[in-house]
Amino acid sequence: MSGGKGSGGLDDSVFAEDTLRTLAADVLACAGMDARDAGCVADALMWAELRGQGGHGLSRLPLYLELIDKGFLDARAVPALALDSAAMFVLEAHRAAGAVAMEAASDLAAARARATGLAFGTVRNASHTGAIGRYAERLAARGLVAIIGAAGPPLMAYAGTAVASASTSPLSIAVPGPAVPVVLDMATSVIPFGRLLQARSLGQPIPEGWALDARGAPTTDPKAASVLLPLGGPKGAGLALMFEILAGLLAGNPILAPALESEESRAAARNGLQNAFLFAADISVFRSLTDFRTDVEELAAALKALPRQPGVEAILLPGERGAAAAARRRAEGVPLAPPLVRSLSDAAARFGLAFPAPA
Amino acid sequence: MSGGKGSGGLDDSVFAEDTLRTLAADVLACAGMDARDAGCVADALMWAELRGQGGHGLSRLPLYLELIDKGFLDARAVPALALDSAAMFVLEAHRAAGAVAMEAASDLAAARARATGLAFGTVRNASHTGAIGRYAERLAARGLVAIIGAAGPPLMAYAGTAVASASTSPLSIAVPGPAVPVVLDMATSVIPFGRLLQARSLGQPIPEGWALDARGAPTTDPKAASVLLPLGGPKGAGLALMFEILAGLLAGNPILAPALESEESRAAARNGLQNAFLFAADISVFRSLTDFRTDVEELAAALKALPRQPGVEAILLPGERGAAAAARRRAEGVPLAPPLVRSLSDAAARFGLAFPAPA
Repeated sequence: MSGGKGSGGLDDSVFAEDTLRTLAADVLACAGMDARDAGCVADALMWAELRGQGGHGLSRLPLYLELIDKGFLDARAVPALALDSAAMFVLEAHRAAGAVAMEAASDLAAARARATGLAFGTVRNASHTGAIGRYAERLAARGLVAIIGAAGPPLMAYAGTAVASASTSPLSIAVPGPAVPVVLDMATSVIPFGRLLQARSLGQPIPEGWALDARGAPTTDPKAASVLLPLGGPKGAGLALMFEILAGLLAGNPILAPALESEESRAAARNGLQNAFLFAADISVFRSLTDFRTDVEELAAALKALPRQPGVEAILLPGERGAAAAARRRAEGVPLAPPLVRSLSDAAARFGLAFPAPA
Repeated sequence: MSGGKGSGGLDDSVFAEDTLRTLAADVLACAGMDARDAGCVADALMWAELRGQGGHGLSRLPLYLELIDKGFLDARAVPALALDSAAMFVLEAHRAAGAVAMEAASDLAAARARATGLAFGTVRNASHTGAIGRYAERLAARGLVAIIGAAGPPLMAYAGTAVASASTSPLSIAVPGPAVPVVLDMATSVIPFGRLLQARSLGQPIPEGWALDARGAPTTDPKAASVLLPLGGPKGAGLALMFEILAGLLAGNPILAPALESEESRAAARNGLQNAFLFAADISVFRSLTDFRTDVEELAAALKALPRQPGVEAILLPGERGAAAAARRRAEGVPLAPPLVRSLSDAAARFGLAFPAPA
């Protein structure tokens, strides 16, 4: 699980971006996806891997195969509109890969926002939606402002509870920037679940305030930690609750309430199906996109010129660190930690595919 | 500044809700507002005061008078549409009281969402928008889901900076609930600015991680503290930056960049003018409001039945604590701390108005 956050440590192997992307697409095609969908999911995993969001990167590939094996991800599913009302829609994903459903939904949102100025839709029953910043960025790259939230099974303690009772629901807001879009992409938990998996895989203790153990007690042991804590207590928990409502209840597809009814139903919710909502608005209805970009650039320049905290080298806009990491990894290769290399190699071997040589 | 958070301490005086509301409306009418606007602002101050959000409650009344005196709040201003495009709008507030502009904007958003299913608008150049949860709640009470954000002058350090460089931009999300709406209303700073003013007025030290002093160093001294810290570092800072963009740059009315250019322009930004954005969607386009409410009720019941952290008496939905406080204060009266009583009494005396007797 750790490769994505690696930065070329002694034990990491470094691979060219395109060989990893091809490997992921080939594995998914062998697992039953058509070429277009396999490419879409591979692109989504690489988007996160390149940006240093390893928890939503290639570490997910073996997990996606497991979901396909168990029937929780339908490699052949085609998302279809369950509601289609001018600027509003519900896309039923039928257990399709999250990237396939989210890409389709963001294309729909962009088309509706172009036609009417606004779009608001939900996606239901998608497999793991992954790094939703990718879809907000896609919308921003088309001259729209975008707000996307997702909601899945309980991995986080709702404020005051001692058990997993809320999703670590991510929120992404993106707008066109001077060069690349500005993309905020954050979990509503103190840390995303992938960060905990990473600490486990590296055997690193975690700071207090990140997680609870299975009995609901605070812990710094990454193996004992099983329930994440919400960002700012009631704030992160409240956001996650609202996303369950906006993404799920609005489209008649609750996840949390059924999952909380019993231990069995909680286990069933681990099928990984998720809901999401997408909002997009066309900037050109308000003002010229050029003027908007100029204002974003001025704001960025004003912030970057400010006095900094000790040890801070540069003031960064949301998404800027990830974009810089992606540029670096495109040029210099993508470092993957040994456990990730092994699990990807196993996935390739399962389908008789050659595993790429390090760059 | 402290009365709003008071809960009937030894020194607090307790007043009947309606006498305080009448006092606030009368003071504002004497300061130049017509009766309808004065009532609207008084209602907004009382909404926050009753819910225990004293920082946006009656403590603001003397500050509003000061803004009127300085010409930063135009008591006679009438907000007008600067952009009117089906479901999208920009409401130019012309320095009107925030409550007057936000109430008008939420009425507009509700009407557009009823007509087209969706609404997205911004408010620009409003005076202090106050507790924006009130306007999200208004929309939710009409069968809509609502997302509102506001952006004002710099009071918080953007992540990595050592100076006030971002707004403490509040975010409110509201949906219809089984009985009353569920209303999340949160600052993107660790604490709202009013909470710091309260600590100052009570002479209480503040916890580490809340604020910086004027030189950018961490402090626990409420008098030295002048710059708030963002919730979760880059997360809260990123949200505040995005709200400056969505509420301000989208409508061509930046606040931060001009304020950061020089010490003079920063001082000028203390005129308190703010921007906001409002999003509303009609639930009945997606499904029956009754079914939606039933699902929210089931979710609430599932959460409330869960094992709790030690010392936690009940699991609360967003806004539930505030709604309970409001019900209690409506029945038992509103406790106000002595410094707040004095400043309200001074405001009344200025216009020759009688100050109400405690209940």
